[in-house]
Amino acid sequence: MCRWIAYSGQTIALERYVAAPMHSLIAQSIGALESSDSTNGDGFGLGWYGEHEEPGLYREVRPAWSDENLRHLCRYIRSHLFFGHVRASTGTATTRPNCHPFAHGRWLFMHNGQIGDWPSIRRRVEALIPDEYYRSRYGTTDSEAVFLAILGSGGERDPIGATARTLATIADIVRTSGVHEPVRFTAALSDGRDLHAFRYASDGTANSLYYRDGGDHVVVASEPLDQDHSYWKPVPAGHLIVASKGKISLRPFTFDSRIAAE
Amino acid sequence: MCRWIAYSGQTIALERYVAAPMHSLIAQSIGALESSDSTNGDGFGLGWYGEHEEPGLYREVRPAWSDENLRHLCRYIRSHLFFGHVRASTGTATTRPNCHPFAHGRWLFMHNGQIGDWPSIRRRVEALIPDEYYRSRYGTTDSEAVFLAILGSGGERDPIGATARTLATIADIVRTSGVHEPVRFTAALSDGRDLHAFRYASDGTANSLYYRDGGDHVVVASEPLDQDHSYWKPVPAGHLIVASKGKISLRPFTFDSRIAAE
Amino acid sequence: MCRWIAYSGQTIALERYVAAPMHSLIAQSIGALESSDSTNGDGFGLGWYGEHEEPGLYREVRPAWSDENLRHLCRYIRSHLFFGHVRASTGTATTRPNCHPFAHGRWLFMHNGQIGDWPSIRRRVEALIPDEYYRSRYGTTDSEAVFLAILGSGGERDPIGATARTLATIADIVRTSGVHEPVRFTAALSDGRDLHAFRYASDGTANSLYYRDGGDHVVVASEPLDQDHSYWKPVPAGHLIVASKGKISLRPFTFDSRIAAE
Amino acid sequence: MCRWIAYSGQTIALERYVAAPMHSLIAQSIGALESSDSTNGDGFGLGWYGEHEEPGLYREVRPAWSDENLRHLCRYIRSHLFFGHVRASTGTATTRPNCHPFAHGRWLFMHNGQIGDWPSIRRRVEALIPDEYYRSRYGTTDSEAVFLAILGSGGERDPIGATARTLATIADIVRTSGVHEPVRFTAALSDGRDLHAFRYASDGTANSLYYRDGGDHVVVASEPLDQDHSYWKPVPAGHLIVASKGKISLRPFTFDSRIAAE
Repeated sequence: MCRWIAYSGQTIALERYVAAPMHSLIAQSIGALESSDSTNGDGFGLGWYGEHEEPGLYREVRPAWSDENLRHLCRYIRSHLFFGHVRASTGTATTRPNCHPFAHGRWLFMHNGQIGDWPSIRRRVEALIPDEYYRSRYGTTDSEAVFLAILGSGGERDPIGATARTLATIADIVRTSGVHEPVRFTAALSDGRDLHAFRYASDGTANSLYYRDGGDHVVVASEPLDQDHSYWKPVPAGHLIVASKGKISLRPFTFDSRIAAE
Repeated sequence: MCRWIAYSGQTIALERYVAAPMHSLIAQSIGALESSDSTNGDGFGLGWYGEHEEPGLYREVRPAWSDENLRHLCRYIRSHLFFGHVRASTGTATTRPNCHPFAHGRWLFMHNGQIGDWPSIRRRVEALIPDEYYRSRYGTTDSEAVFLAILGSGGERDPIGATARTLATIADIVRTSGVHEPVRFTAALSDGRDLHAFRYASDGTANSLYYRDGGDHVVVASEPLDQDHSYWKPVPAGHLIVASKGKISLRPFTFDSRIAAE
Repeated sequence: MCRWIAYSGQTIALERYVAAPMHSLIAQSIGALESSDSTNGDGFGLGWYGEHEEPGLYREVRPAWSDENLRHLCRYIRSHLFFGHVRASTGTATTRPNCHPFAHGRWLFMHNGQIGDWPSIRRRVEALIPDEYYRSRYGTTDSEAVFLAILGSGGERDPIGATARTLATIADIVRTSGVHEPVRFTAALSDGRDLHAFRYASDGTANSLYYRDGGDHVVVASEPLDQDHSYWKPVPAGHLIVASKGKISLRPFTFDSRIAAE
Repeated sequence: MCRWIAYSGQTIALERYVAAPMHSLIAQSIGALESSDSTNGDGFGLGWYGEHEEPGLYREVRPAWSDENLRHLCRYIRSHLFFGHVRASTGTATTRPNCHPFAHGRWLFMHNGQIGDWPSIRRRVEALIPDEYYRSRYGTTDSEAVFLAILGSGGERDPIGATARTLATIADIVRTSGVHEPVRFTAALSDGRDLHAFRYASDGTANSLYYRDGGDHVVVASEPLDQDHSYWKPVPAGHLIVASKGKISLRPFTFDSRIAAE
């Protein structure tokens, strides 16, 4: 399991949430509390939007806690919408292209979860990615494959629908794979304007996700960033948060396999 | 273009050819002579056979010339059959899984060349890899894909035939891809007993390859490792070297597309 | 020999000079023209000033040419005064703390040159660093030691005088070291307001340095960044450039050993 | 706090203790039990003796648990006397030269502990290192400085006496530094023939150390490598183990400041 945060709101320095809080993302890299892995030391990444349409990316294989560059960059890079992720690998190699977030055009994606028994279903999931998106397959993770499959399923026009369609298809693939592993999908997706944060699991054990509505901004995180848990509300399993220009909505996120067949 | 060496013969320390000669592989990493890229600084790797059936691997993203570990390892690791490779990327990321040599079971492979316009044909080449070998697709290079396709085409029983069949199929894929880029394949393949070193190009510009027959050993290299060029003979384009237990044979290596259709 | 650039002027994205020009700093990392080392692949670094008094730093051991992060960061980080450096090590290890630029408080420093026979004189040069600055001795290079010695010699109040005093003292140390190696010092020093760029050598072979006066900005670089050499003027050996708020002055930079004795 | 193991005995593959046991050194890198830091992810290193007088070294900044090379090397490298170390930094940077073990000539050293308030006393400890050993000061850690000070104090002829003298001197430096931090020294030192493993603390809280006498070999480790604790005996604080050609002796290791004054 990995840990991540996403922010949407007034433009701020990334350090405000990545480095500064008592239980910041960097602190979670070496001491996560609500995860089966307390150490998330298999690389990390930042993605942020600013003056360009395409987001910026900084990904590194070293643990976040010992990266001097990370503290400098978080202090100087400012953004109205950014992602931060610390990784605990579930098997794929610790390389930069395997670190989250992933980018394609103006889209960013990051994930904490599990896509069935990945070695068994990898080819069938990769086959969901249309050629034009397959060129952006820089790594070998399940997460990147799901991201490109979502975009390839119409995600650039209809991100929520495409995510539902893709997960439904993958649920079908997993079901017919013969290996009974769940699909757990706690993920963030954005085009630089709208932030979508999903919490879903096929088996009722969805990976943790919280949000804090700050009025003019929202923070979504795998774990509360500070002790003040009254401010942090869990995103219920089977729901998603959509944040856009200061407005937040919490919506059910469900689908069934028939969607995939359409 | 990359640079590589392969050795088969009496058991020796790897430094004998990787580090010691005036124009050793490490020297070629920063000053290759017969290559379009004089710098081969996009990672490197060693693969060697010893007391285990499966070869050892050491791959690193840093340039070979500045890696202190490499000099220690080359001094202490001894082998009767080993590969060394310094990489100049043709586009894929500088990650350890993208560094040569590649291993699967008891097989090792490394490559210097070009497989058409890789982004255009990647999916069709990856589709040649059977499922049982696709699990060993740890990186994203063309070279690793060709290796796994060769093994999947029967390479473990018939390495030369499978290489010819795979290249013929790829030549067909390239020809129908609409992008007129050549297939250039200067590669080494071994199971720990026999060393196969191929030099082939679809367009008459095969990447350089030399060999030195030392009586009880053979060294094959992209460039001569010393000034004594009289000892180094070019492997002619369209040929392969097979070295096994001190015996070397030079054979034609040709194929045509009909092979692929069989 | 290394390659570096420094910029002072209107706030711009770092990519304007680090990545975009035909012979940008990144291009120079793999193909420098006016250096004994065409490859500068032993790490690199960026330092920049912005909204904080202390500069930002990004340093990495991989070659600049293959670092995907670097291109993203250069695109998003904007500054009115920044440094970029690609390193060709003269012997010290390729580690992040050995990459330029170096920072202490609001000061940045980078260097291309040689400080006598460093192993012979290292202890005596390190002894020039007062305790309060020695705590910032994170690496083992000659360049960082000279930087901290300059600051310790009053550089924060009188950067030019302290640089002259320190080099004079070092020249004395070198002269009495018994090893006849030159002192070559082509370096940049800034507090975020004034940019000082020095070109000096004890033996008449000063490392190259050029500047381009753009009216409202100045660029100083080891090599011209483009073919339009008419815009690039050499900084004469034994001179320094001082750039501050759009005004540039070229001044003689000389000293003699007696200064050190004062 | 770091974790380490040392082995002396019949020649074996390093994996026997580094990788294979249930609570191997690699396992301890992500889940140490008897340490204030359960994660030891700030680099690691191996040092081993074989056919050369000078030991081999492999040091890397990535965590041990995710380094694919480490498993290959541990499988192929065989030694009669080797060290393995996983690092939890107490402040100095995560660089290869700061990873243990450290080597000089035929000597190897590694350490788990604390040398007073290092920033306060660093210069005075570095001043203990004679010039001929200062050339091997490749990093910036307290541990490397203590190692070179021991060698410089006659450690090559009298390793136990020189260690006692150096620690006595350092104890004096710490006592007069005004910062009341302890000296804790749980360390291994070898010349390839004799293995010395020390457990000492100035404040009665010595870092853990255990040994297992296997008859023809001995393993010394920060923590038992398996559940069978009956085989593992603690090295008492204020003692050292000397292992040489199958014979083990446990001796008191004490000194007082007067030694330093001699």
